[in-house]
Amino acid sequence: MSLLEIAGLLQRVRIVLVETSHPGNIGATARAMKTMGLTDLVLVQPKRFPDPQALWRAAGGEDVLISARVVDSLASAIADCHWVVATSARQRRIPWPILSPREFAVAAVARPGQQIAIVFGREDKGLSNEELRRCQSHVEIPANPEYPILNVAMAVQVIAYELFQADLSQGSEVPREPLEWDRPLAAHELVEGFMRHLEAVLQTSKFVDPANPGQTMTRFRRLFSRLDLDITEVAMLRGFLKQVCPEAGSGEVKKSS
Amino acid sequence: MSLLEIAGLLQRVRIVLVETSHPGNIGATARAMKTMGLTDLVLVQPKRFPDPQALWRAAGGEDVLISARVVDSLASAIADCHWVVATSARQRRIPWPILSPREFAVAAVARPGQQIAIVFGREDKGLSNEELRRCQSHVEIPANPEYPILNVAMAVQVIAYELFQADLSQGSEVPREPLEWDRPLAAHELVEGFMRHLEAVLQTSKFVDPANPGQTMTRFRRLFSRLDLDITEVAMLRGFLKQVCPEAGSGEVKKSS
Repeated sequence: MSLLEIAGLLQRVRIVLVETSHPGNIGATARAMKTMGLTDLVLVQPKRFPDPQALWRAAGGEDVLISARVVDSLASAIADCHWVVATSARQRRIPWPILSPREFAVAAVARPGQQIAIVFGREDKGLSNEELRRCQSHVEIPANPEYPILNVAMAVQVIAYELFQADLSQGSEVPREPLEWDRPLAAHELVEGFMRHLEAVLQTSKFVDPANPGQTMTRFRRLFSRLDLDITEVAMLRGFLKQVCPEAGSGEVKKSS
Repeated sequence: MSLLEIAGLLQRVRIVLVETSHPGNIGATARAMKTMGLTDLVLVQPKRFPDPQALWRAAGGEDVLISARVVDSLASAIADCHWVVATSARQRRIPWPILSPREFAVAAVARPGQQIAIVFGREDKGLSNEELRRCQSHVEIPANPEYPILNVAMAVQVIAYELFQADLSQGSEVPREPLEWDRPLAAHELVEGFMRHLEAVLQTSKFVDPANPGQTMTRFRRLFSRLDLDITEVAMLRGFLKQVCPEAGSGEVKKSS
């Protein structure tokens, strides 16, 4: 079994930047990659690199930046890749297979053992037709038709985010952890005890007239029913009721009508 | 029918940046928003703004940048909002409801007619616990545990991308009826008024010791934040507080520490 076959998705995807003008964008790309667990960055003829601005914008993604390879052609950047995909904002004259970022990420997962590259063009004019034709598919980030041009590092962030999502859900679709709550949920009976206590306080404090209760208790009940109260919250609410209206008791003595 | 009720998702979501240090990030945020059709940007005490760097990084998102509002507190940035969500990279001691960017976008679609805000913190230290507690839900962008810290404008791009996706797929899905509720939803400022009132009662009634408050107010806040309170409920809760603890006043006189 080759190394690629056991490599996870994020190890198999290379980010390729073609003739980037601004070193800040290279640094920001490294940071975006790092936040999403990508490590393989290749720069095709960057205009200014290395550069202090790249390092500054890389922030915690310094290691990605430092291990980036600089090459002199797109061909050598993607030579060892099995699947090469271009990012593009414009529709070409000849339609190409187009993927959304999400479709790209899902398709990448479905190609285990493959080295994958995704290619990003120049800040001002993207990729040439010649470069686009070298790529098997094109990825378009859906965007505002009035101004669909994402900054190149922003586009890397969106693609990397979708790859990270796809990698996360790969293990299985199911095991989304239930929200870690700090206290056990209150069972129905405990909540009802609180509701009775509240009703006693509403009446004892004369906020509600027992002879003419109107909808107040119903509205309180609807309000608290919308919550999944935990046991600490029930205890806290009841402690509060006891504090502000001790004469109501705990509401357990008699059930009001 | 109000304007909000007919407004599309992208018109109803406000991006709020809190105390951004670097004007480049403000410009990049404006561009990220523009590419995804968002227009409503509010800046809470930006360190340097306006600034040529912001304008330069805004590129084609100049109009978003120029129409950005600058305010002096988070409270005023979100006063008119019905649903306020914070972005957060860290787990808090008291867990809060957590959404992924995708879940946030889907939930936003499912709240037609609501003004929604999503709040982004400082470059170096994010949002304070106090600010996080003001928000009803937290959004976490799934990221590399080794370095999960996205640049703030990158985080905006990811969220905006998910909103745009959700807006796109909205048309194709069966239109979701807005929940028929009998009363208008309370806006943030109204809910905060209740929270202040509650805090005053907790202290005046000595349920909470102001010198040593512990987590009680935070737990109360989390509890009520999980509800979308309507205006009648807020009035009812405040009426109840006044009835059981008139000596606390309305909580409006002084903000407790």
